[in-house]
Amino acid sequence: MKASALSFTLASGLLVYSSAAQAPSKTIEEKLGYPRGAKLLIVHADDLGMTHSVNAASIAALESGGINSASFMVPCPWFPEIADYAKSRPAGDFGLHLTLTSERVYYRWGPVAPRDKVPSLVDGDGYFHHDWSSETPIDPKDVETEVRAQVARAERMGVHPTHLDSHQNRLFQTNKELFGVILRVAHENHLPVLIPRNWFADFPYLEKSLGPNDVVIDRVVTMQPGVPPEKWADFYRNALAHLEPGVTELVIHLAYADAEMKAATRERDTWGAEWRQHDFDFFSSAEFQSLLRDQQIHLITWREIGRAMNPPAKTEQ
Amino acid sequence: MKASALSFTLASGLLVYSSAAQAPSKTIEEKLGYPRGAKLLIVHADDLGMTHSVNAASIAALESGGINSASFMVPCPWFPEIADYAKSRPAGDFGLHLTLTSERVYYRWGPVAPRDKVPSLVDGDGYFHHDWSSETPIDPKDVETEVRAQVARAERMGVHPTHLDSHQNRLFQTNKELFGVILRVAHENHLPVLIPRNWFADFPYLEKSLGPNDVVIDRVVTMQPGVPPEKWADFYRNALAHLEPGVTELVIHLAYADAEMKAATRERDTWGAEWRQHDFDFFSSAEFQSLLRDQQIHLITWREIGRAMNPPAKTEQ
Repeated sequence: MKASALSFTLASGLLVYSSAAQAPSKTIEEKLGYPRGAKLLIVHADDLGMTHSVNAASIAALESGGINSASFMVPCPWFPEIADYAKSRPAGDFGLHLTLTSERVYYRWGPVAPRDKVPSLVDGDGYFHHDWSSETPIDPKDVETEVRAQVARAERMGVHPTHLDSHQNRLFQTNKELFGVILRVAHENHLPVLIPRNWFADFPYLEKSLGPNDVVIDRVVTMQPGVPPEKWADFYRNALAHLEPGVTELVIHLAYADAEMKAATRERDTWGAEWRQHDFDFFSSAEFQSLLRDQQIHLITWREIGRAMNPPAKTEQ
Repeated sequence: MKASALSFTLASGLLVYSSAAQAPSKTIEEKLGYPRGAKLLIVHADDLGMTHSVNAASIAALESGGINSASFMVPCPWFPEIADYAKSRPAGDFGLHLTLTSERVYYRWGPVAPRDKVPSLVDGDGYFHHDWSSETPIDPKDVETEVRAQVARAERMGVHPTHLDSHQNRLFQTNKELFGVILRVAHENHLPVLIPRNWFADFPYLEKSLGPNDVVIDRVVTMQPGVPPEKWADFYRNALAHLEPGVTELVIHLAYADAEMKAATRERDTWGAEWRQHDFDFFSSAEFQSLLRDQQIHLITWREIGRAMNPPAKTEQ
């Protein structure tokens, strides 16, 4: 049985699995070959597929080693470009950034599933809603239909994801039912999901929903609106200088501040073109690489985590 | 009755309506207040909504007077941007460039109607087909569903078109049934359709399908693949220097040769980024304006043609 080959226990704020067979417990760090208490980091770019600018900057950062993991927005019009890139990098760490909203004003997208099969997810113009409010009664059945359609399109177009996460954290930070959808689809596909322990206090259903094989990382660190532009680099410097032991995913958003990206995000500055250009600049810098070295931070990927979750079946004898 | 207020006869290769009441016949030129034999031109940019680059270049050309008419691709992700612009220019001459294909490789779009309602129009990934071949049996019912969905989205988003035409001429140059769809939807909406007499020889069903109120212009002039880049300006110079009398639509394709447009069209040069940048440059030039003046070419719009087709109902007494 696969599960018995994989036994984690809680340690240093880490994951999460206690096998009935009382197998010796290991942290994720140890499962990946690092000592307990190592600082492990996934440098993860979100939103690939959204625009060409996001794709181009993210590909440049992947090629230069500025980031080592990313996830793709399957409903977005530039998904074919990033799917083509992913097929050329079969060892890459590429997940699906499951998308249920179309939050911009001048540039929009809609569901992969037929609109009439996911009516609660679309607005009157046929796009995903800009935003969800209490007047947007989202039907978890529609969410499941759409999530499965996104996974199916990705697979069909040659993208075999290493992990699942969710645009604007809608599947994590809405309710237990929507979290149930991503968890169910992840289990069926034997994929890890972004589940950081530092979200448990705000969203208690996350922890309660977990099964014995779910991997929990320690934390997501990401820059939120409110940090003024002149402090953006300091935010990242500080996050890296004080990185705690265990597994952290640093979620960033890369793009160039070019005509396309400025137009696509012009109605507000948050996660806008300048923000994303700055993320690209910081994570492409020599300073970032020195911070990693100075702080003895090791980069890991969801592919490695997935392999530890789903070790190859033992061969006979 | 509206029709009796509007009586064209064939003249100088023009439209096309002979009323049973033997009303005095006028050419389009005359209906629009020009003498018979005037050279009337619609300078028409296609593909607005396709990318931000197309929108930005086309808006610049509209504002500077380089073009005076355009049509929008409703299924494309940048349609909201151009719809927003159109709402700010209520007197503008903006039609719908009804779209049934997604011909690029790295940047794609799909139907406005639910995919499962237009199955013959979509490929296995859920986008419009790249291209149509004999193995793409297009169901005219699906085409009608999709065309109506595009018109409905445009109206809902505040775009009230002045005319209808069709991306890649699919609705004109495929078969009688598909031409029937655009004609039917145009009639219902009291809109003129791009029907140039110079297509009749190749597509005889066009002429045969026309009703008494359909307006036929004399010709479409557009640059086709095969003209080498160094001859592009000569193509337009020659077209304008030898423009024949009557109503001509000059169909052009504007964009900037920027990162977005280069990426969106990189699999082939035809109607690619450089082609579109050149169109922008030529039609923004002082040379183009002089050619218009020198050749005594008058610019007209579909809005004017539509007004001639549908004159305001006579008020009582």
